[in-house]
Amino acid sequence: MAEREQEFLRPGERFDDLQRNGLRILQHPGRFCFGMDAVLLSGFACVRPGERVLDLGTGTGILPILLSAKTQGREFVGLEIQPESADMARRSVEYNGIGDRVRIVEGDLREASARFGNASFDVVTANPPYMEAGAGLSNPQSEKAIARHEICCTFRDVARETAKVLPPGGRFFLVHRPQRLVELIQTLSEYALEPKRMKFVQPYVCREPNMVLMECVKGAKRMVTVEAPIIVFEKPGVYHADIRDVYGY
Amino acid sequence: MAEREQEFLRPGERFDDLQRNGLRILQHPGRFCFGMDAVLLSGFACVRPGERVLDLGTGTGILPILLSAKTQGREFVGLEIQPESADMARRSVEYNGIGDRVRIVEGDLREASARFGNASFDVVTANPPYMEAGAGLSNPQSEKAIARHEICCTFRDVARETAKVLPPGGRFFLVHRPQRLVELIQTLSEYALEPKRMKFVQPYVCREPNMVLMECVKGAKRMVTVEAPIIVFEKPGVYHADIRDVYGY
Repeated sequence: MAEREQEFLRPGERFDDLQRNGLRILQHPGRFCFGMDAVLLSGFACVRPGERVLDLGTGTGILPILLSAKTQGREFVGLEIQPESADMARRSVEYNGIGDRVRIVEGDLREASARFGNASFDVVTANPPYMEAGAGLSNPQSEKAIARHEICCTFRDVARETAKVLPPGGRFFLVHRPQRLVELIQTLSEYALEPKRMKFVQPYVCREPNMVLMECVKGAKRMVTVEAPIIVFEKPGVYHADIRDVYGY
Repeated sequence: MAEREQEFLRPGERFDDLQRNGLRILQHPGRFCFGMDAVLLSGFACVRPGERVLDLGTGTGILPILLSAKTQGREFVGLEIQPESADMARRSVEYNGIGDRVRIVEGDLREASARFGNASFDVVTANPPYMEAGAGLSNPQSEKAIARHEICCTFRDVARETAKVLPPGGRFFLVHRPQRLVELIQTLSEYALEPKRMKFVQPYVCREPNMVLMECVKGAKRMVTVEAPIIVFEKPGVYHADIRDVYGY
């Protein structure tokens, strides 16, 4: 392993290759690792040259890091409440030498608008916890639990803060579970984040979707396009062409 | 042509074979003819033995006629505001000899609950007009326009009357355009018709859906299943297996 990598690694961590511009990201297999949802969201999100992007609950920074490579946005801010994740994200940014465009901020997304101000970003992205807090959590303080369950924020918090930091016409890209679609649409609409584009993700062509990607536009008029779904696998172990397109394989 | 058929036909009309139990339906090619949406809805709707079913805006009766053959429901009532369509539907019912289970009522769906009473059906079905009334309609009184545009009823009317004629736990099956999904979900939720199951219909495997089938349950808790989509065509002119299943080919 190169000496430079050793400088950035802490015990239990590894570097994963992002298959894009030579980028690598620090991960800790014992904690929460990013999944295909984040990668698909980075392909679904559309960032125009010069735009400012806020990622709410950035974890180890996968979305701002990928978007900095895939788009010509000017600035990408990743907000993360968990100190260990924020620290890993910061080291990944530094390792990749993209600190001029990507900034990691440790903080609570429920205070995003208080911290950054109203109408302070053109685009918001979020890969929020999918599951409600629930009662059966064995260790609700664990990093994985906080990334997956609505312990430190609810979807309503995400929608409210997104609506505040976006100007009218600002775009919000998110990924979530289809099971919560009705609630998502209701909550988004309450905050004038009008769903304009939806794309379901199916593991196979004949299987029900397990993710939904959405683009909302603040204050837009009511009318949504449901796009053709993304199919993940052609057959077991073989990615479908859709996925190769998004991953850039 | 059999003499018996001639008895039921009026000028310009024809009998179409429904490929199910020898059923036939009267259609008038110059007016509104049922489409694949109605047939798919009849395959998506689930009616249990002994249940009573109301079809709001039944047109020429395609849904109650098909459902009477596909299910063991006890009674199917089709409500239609246009006298010519209601008359054709009645003659189709008579021709098929299913008048003991299927009844066509001429009337305004906006008065369905006043006519039939609250909590008077177990199931409601609807293939309502997809398009808003709009200003550019050349002939808003034409039968086709009334079947396709929200001239005689809005989606809100359909949801309100459905909610009234169903008891808690009653089911509502509908087909509509994905473009209006956000509005549909909002309006349905306002009337406590909780979407529990959704299925998109795509013309081809890699094309965006042009219909959405929904099952709502009155008063149910919030959680929806988005099923695998229906694919209509395998290739141009060749139906996909999904369709053969629904049509019963």
